[in-house]
Amino acid sequence: MTHEATEHGKGGVYSSKGKEFTRDTRYINDRIVAHPTAPDEWPVEPGRYRLIAARACPWANRSLIVRRLLGLEDALSVGMPEPTHDADSWTFGLDPGGVDPVLGIHKLKDAFLARFPDYSRGITVPAIVEVSSGKVVTNDFAQITEDFATQWTAFQREGAPDLWPAERLDELREVMQRIYTEVNNGVYRCGFAGSQDAYDAAYERLWTALDWLEQRLTDRRYLMGESITEADVRLFTTLVRFDPVYHGHFKCNRNKLTEMPALWGYARDLYQTPGFGDTVDFVQIKQHYYIVHTDLNPLGIVPDGPDLSGWLTPHGREALGGRPFGDGTPPGPVRAGEEVPNPLV
Amino acid sequence: MTHEATEHGKGGVYSSKGKEFTRDTRYINDRIVAHPTAPDEWPVEPGRYRLIAARACPWANRSLIVRRLLGLEDALSVGMPEPTHDADSWTFGLDPGGVDPVLGIHKLKDAFLARFPDYSRGITVPAIVEVSSGKVVTNDFAQITEDFATQWTAFQREGAPDLWPAERLDELREVMQRIYTEVNNGVYRCGFAGSQDAYDAAYERLWTALDWLEQRLTDRRYLMGESITEADVRLFTTLVRFDPVYHGHFKCNRNKLTEMPALWGYARDLYQTPGFGDTVDFVQIKQHYYIVHTDLNPLGIVPDGPDLSGWLTPHGREALGGRPFGDGTPPGPVRAGEEVPNPLV
Repeated sequence: MTHEATEHGKGGVYSSKGKEFTRDTRYINDRIVAHPTAPDEWPVEPGRYRLIAARACPWANRSLIVRRLLGLEDALSVGMPEPTHDADSWTFGLDPGGVDPVLGIHKLKDAFLARFPDYSRGITVPAIVEVSSGKVVTNDFAQITEDFATQWTAFQREGAPDLWPAERLDELREVMQRIYTEVNNGVYRCGFAGSQDAYDAAYERLWTALDWLEQRLTDRRYLMGESITEADVRLFTTLVRFDPVYHGHFKCNRNKLTEMPALWGYARDLYQTPGFGDTVDFVQIKQHYYIVHTDLNPLGIVPDGPDLSGWLTPHGREALGGRPFGDGTPPGPVRAGEEVPNPLV
Repeated sequence: MTHEATEHGKGGVYSSKGKEFTRDTRYINDRIVAHPTAPDEWPVEPGRYRLIAARACPWANRSLIVRRLLGLEDALSVGMPEPTHDADSWTFGLDPGGVDPVLGIHKLKDAFLARFPDYSRGITVPAIVEVSSGKVVTNDFAQITEDFATQWTAFQREGAPDLWPAERLDELREVMQRIYTEVNNGVYRCGFAGSQDAYDAAYERLWTALDWLEQRLTDRRYLMGESITEADVRLFTTLVRFDPVYHGHFKCNRNKLTEMPALWGYARDLYQTPGFGDTVDFVQIKQHYYIVHTDLNPLGIVPDGPDLSGWLTPHGREALGGRPFGDGTPPGPVRAGEEVPNPLV
């Protein structure tokens, strides 16, 4: 479901008493590709589409990072809903008049209904909308970033890194699959567990995976070794939310991220790399989870902690070597108007 | 209110939407004293009374520690309710048949009603009950431990420490007052805040106090210097619950206790001192808060974290000097039948 709006005003019910959490993974899975050959494939075309990606949401954050690493800003504009949901959709409350300036809609739901008038599944981010028709093309978050890397190549910046190294694709996919089921989704499995048994099992699974990653990253700068790949983007978006949200709100509390030396160094290394930390808004992240999940946090109080100043401290990971962008270069400064509203400093 | 049973089955409502938390401090404040001179003073007498003190509750934990430090086990027996409440009272579900073996009651409420048939305030622990009549004498938690130290002197063990050093009583009381309002009660003020403003203010107050204590304990082994006093008992019971409960459940999450070097060393030092850690049951502590406060944690899931193994690690505080028990000695082993049900090792 990625981050789905629900039927309970600001907030909603995400857990189901007595049950374990199961993610609804039915997306609109059309693709945008370089050379369409099927009815559900749309052509890559600069200016034709708009990415809608709330900063709060880890799945949307992934698309923001990849867009920036690859320099797709000119080819694909971005709209950013506010961190909390209203009754049935992500809304554009951060924009003047509460309207997305390009799509002209108040609610992301309008773009889903423009595509399918009786759409009844999750209104999720990230979503890519065709600007002229106002229709959602896809909200399949995993495919979106893969296609940014492999289909939008003609419009990537000079020096864009190779996030999907062809010679190691099998291992990359295997690592990413484990990160998805065990970590990205694993924290939700803990938080939305509807019974103690389901939670206990989810907690065990999560920490087994985090211990594996702690080990893997002890002598590797990045998940695949020398350079940043899509796998790092995917792990980063969960790690950056770990202490502010998942540790307490989702009861993923064996340790804080800051207590896992390799993971904490790795997360800071990425945070301080252009394209990562400059997409992260800790204020919006905390507001989203603590206000939207009224079944976990009925009073909607947003914690003032944790102390986040450590994200800017030296991580020492350069000692492991590596070339973050491989044969490429770091992305330039964040585009005007796309700066994080609540930066750490 | 100390830990009060409420009217909502296992669990209850502790916060009040839109309001800050205010503790109900109306207790049955009779005293048990060496030389009674007033109608609300009862005589110290070995075997006459029974202390009821749930391990889960920090205010009750205080009485368990002081009773053990002073060696009052023979003079005053103890009954221990289970960690979660039923509809309207602490209950004796850990005892055979669910009945306190000395008082013969299922619910602590019965002892309050025996004293006042229309008692309508909080059924709280610690409470001291007269065994023969089954009536609660007092549930005034602060007075209870002071009287253990100052009134029950004839029945204290040989080598009992001086927890209320007469020559420094003013400073001791001042420190304890600040610890009570800012820390012991301060964590509840965060957790039960019914509005973001009330929470923000409570968080600020709490961390101001914890920073003060971190500073104070950086070059002092104990709060009053060389030796353990009542002030240390009072601070310890909150610190030992901090990472397992208050950090996440009450959103006291600027830092974990483990991230405050002096406080963490100090807490471990006390935990490893006879009379402190051997009264602490982390399992019961977590069950109590996470299951009883259904308004904060509706699903009643109890977190499996944090990793508590650090409590047994070397603390290095001996380097600050000091004599933990002053001119006294440590208490002996825990009495048979009073061992913590879920020890760390």
